[in-house]
Amino acid sequence: MKGGGFSFQLLKEVKGKGRLGRISTPHGSSSTPAFMPVGSQGSVKSLAPADLKEMGAEILLCNAYHLYLRPGTEVVKEVGGLHRFMGWDGPLLTDSGGFQILSLCALHDVGPDGVRFRSHLDGSVHFLTPEKVVRIQEELGADIMMVLDDCHPYPVSYSEAKAAAELTTHWAKRSKGAKSRNEQALFGIVQGGIYPELRRQSAHQLMMMGFDGYAIGGLSVGEEKEVTFEIAEMTASVLPKDSVRYLMGMGTPEDILAGVRMGVDMFDCVLPTRCARTGILFTSSGKLNIKNARYSKDKNPLDPHCRCYTCRNFTRAYLRHLFLSRELLAYRLNAIHNLFYYHSLMRDIRQALSQDKMDQFEREFFSQRGRDNGANSGEEGGEIVC
Amino acid sequence: MKGGGFSFQLLKEVKGKGRLGRISTPHGSSSTPAFMPVGSQGSVKSLAPADLKEMGAEILLCNAYHLYLRPGTEVVKEVGGLHRFMGWDGPLLTDSGGFQILSLCALHDVGPDGVRFRSHLDGSVHFLTPEKVVRIQEELGADIMMVLDDCHPYPVSYSEAKAAAELTTHWAKRSKGAKSRNEQALFGIVQGGIYPELRRQSAHQLMMMGFDGYAIGGLSVGEEKEVTFEIAEMTASVLPKDSVRYLMGMGTPEDILAGVRMGVDMFDCVLPTRCARTGILFTSSGKLNIKNARYSKDKNPLDPHCRCYTCRNFTRAYLRHLFLSRELLAYRLNAIHNLFYYHSLMRDIRQALSQDKMDQFEREFFSQRGRDNGANSGEEGGEIVC
Repeated sequence: MKGGGFSFQLLKEVKGKGRLGRISTPHGSSSTPAFMPVGSQGSVKSLAPADLKEMGAEILLCNAYHLYLRPGTEVVKEVGGLHRFMGWDGPLLTDSGGFQILSLCALHDVGPDGVRFRSHLDGSVHFLTPEKVVRIQEELGADIMMVLDDCHPYPVSYSEAKAAAELTTHWAKRSKGAKSRNEQALFGIVQGGIYPELRRQSAHQLMMMGFDGYAIGGLSVGEEKEVTFEIAEMTASVLPKDSVRYLMGMGTPEDILAGVRMGVDMFDCVLPTRCARTGILFTSSGKLNIKNARYSKDKNPLDPHCRCYTCRNFTRAYLRHLFLSRELLAYRLNAIHNLFYYHSLMRDIRQALSQDKMDQFEREFFSQRGRDNGANSGEEGGEIVC
Repeated sequence: MKGGGFSFQLLKEVKGKGRLGRISTPHGSSSTPAFMPVGSQGSVKSLAPADLKEMGAEILLCNAYHLYLRPGTEVVKEVGGLHRFMGWDGPLLTDSGGFQILSLCALHDVGPDGVRFRSHLDGSVHFLTPEKVVRIQEELGADIMMVLDDCHPYPVSYSEAKAAAELTTHWAKRSKGAKSRNEQALFGIVQGGIYPELRRQSAHQLMMMGFDGYAIGGLSVGEEKEVTFEIAEMTASVLPKDSVRYLMGMGTPEDILAGVRMGVDMFDCVLPTRCARTGILFTSSGKLNIKNARYSKDKNPLDPHCRCYTCRNFTRAYLRHLFLSRELLAYRLNAIHNLFYYHSLMRDIRQALSQDKMDQFEREFFSQRGRDNGANSGEEGGEIVC
């Protein structure tokens, strides 16, 4: 249902298993746990809105930093806002750019008032304040806006992490004050590095201010996976039960399963589209590297259990040929498959939660890996490198 | 209607205006005059079969040379033939590769028995005879096969052109002898450079042998456009009335209009897809360069008269942004538009022929260029460079 403002409805919660919910926005709603495909520059790489609708995507993520630099906020605004600009009429979340400034800009300087940085595109110098980042996102017309945060790569000392978390909290307060439109939601971002005490403090300060949702930021920035999970779980546990929780930038199917168990409601990651462009495909029996010679005459679809456009119409042999021939169609067909996989995973997770079968689902999920499809076992085990 | 072999039905012919017809193949039929999108490597660049169906494509062209080298004929055969391989269930024509060997292989050596060349992919040496080229196309399962021809760049002397035309005729005879399947059609290719006498001779010799269709080859290889048209027209005029005529590798919308008037039934060209990748879009009022700054905030579709997926959903501002951001979606949306434009043009031409309004159609076609859309007038006049 479209219209109205932002709301989150928690439909079911079982501790240690996960939560079922629904977010509503002026551009429609999305079931949670939800995965958001990433369209940083206003396009989920290689896919059109019709592709995303067909695979069951309900909400997308774009990036305010990228769109601010190119084509420029005023362009998007003048064309009628980001939804109209990119032809997507469903819910949109825009990330603020804190993480992108950290990761893309060789030169950036964080001060109490904001962050000064050189554009990764043309070297031009920009200064973004928390207020300006809210204004950019208001002009883009995002349904969900993210506050500007001070994000650091791992490792950071306790005192650095403390300062960054405090600055993020300070900016969050200013962001909230700058927000001028009721229909757009604003999420706070919990920082605090790998220090539980700082995370707890950051979360509590944001909760005191009151946001429409709470994101767990500053993870997956170089620390051990075990630490990521520990901090994410600890942070999720202190967030308010009735608000939506968003674990930023994660991750693999396994990460998502773990996040759901921690009580996270929203996820995003470039992995499915990035892997599509490097020939790594997600299947029910594990990862498949389409470049592998063993697929040269393989008449099977990528995943015999998958009903995506790619699997319904094309063989592994053809997909391998397209990829090796650098045909543009390869990237789109791979992206359709990978994102369909992610959205199927989310549907399956929601069904398992609804039927109280999360343990069983997870057992089956892991047991299918390494068997079922002998072709895949072993070779692509371990970390995904896309 | 599917099933049966190849046939061509001439439905209407008005000298100097054009011909209406229909080709039938084991994989369905196509109205003529027809434009064939080019999918050299088994994929029309950036487009899926569903895209091609939606825009009204009825027949595609692939390239035996490319597919022979990669993924290899045996791969396509083992997966079930080219239709199954690329997921296209309509008519397919495969070009033989004569032109590709000329244009892509720095080292090639034409002898009486065939052509020896180094692969443009890996430098491996191959020898293709007319018989082998027919066998490759039979294994690919093309509905329409082309004979191997000896194609030369402009200029060639009379004696060189004569030798090439005679060799092509000799190979055509051997190709016909090698053909082992009734349901696949084989077209002869008229050569003879820019020499009317040689063209006439080449055409007559092929007609004596009898082919399922006749192609006009060896044009648009560097000669003046005026000469191209003169030779194409002269050649078309001596071809049998009841057989289908195919003008190879041409061309622009203007080329197609001229070809139709000469009595040509089939066309192919990489132009619409190649231009899509360089940001040149075809519209009813002329060409549009989407990179142009004047489109940065333009809320209009590429062509207000167009009903393609791209024009129904996206602004010029967004398409410019995608192109400048090198988003993969840019190439697909542009290709959808350009090929939709070509197929609309063919539909309009067929309708004009059917209603005896070819002159009126052509007047309107040209009068719309340079006016109607002030934004486009002038800037992209002249030759298309994609």
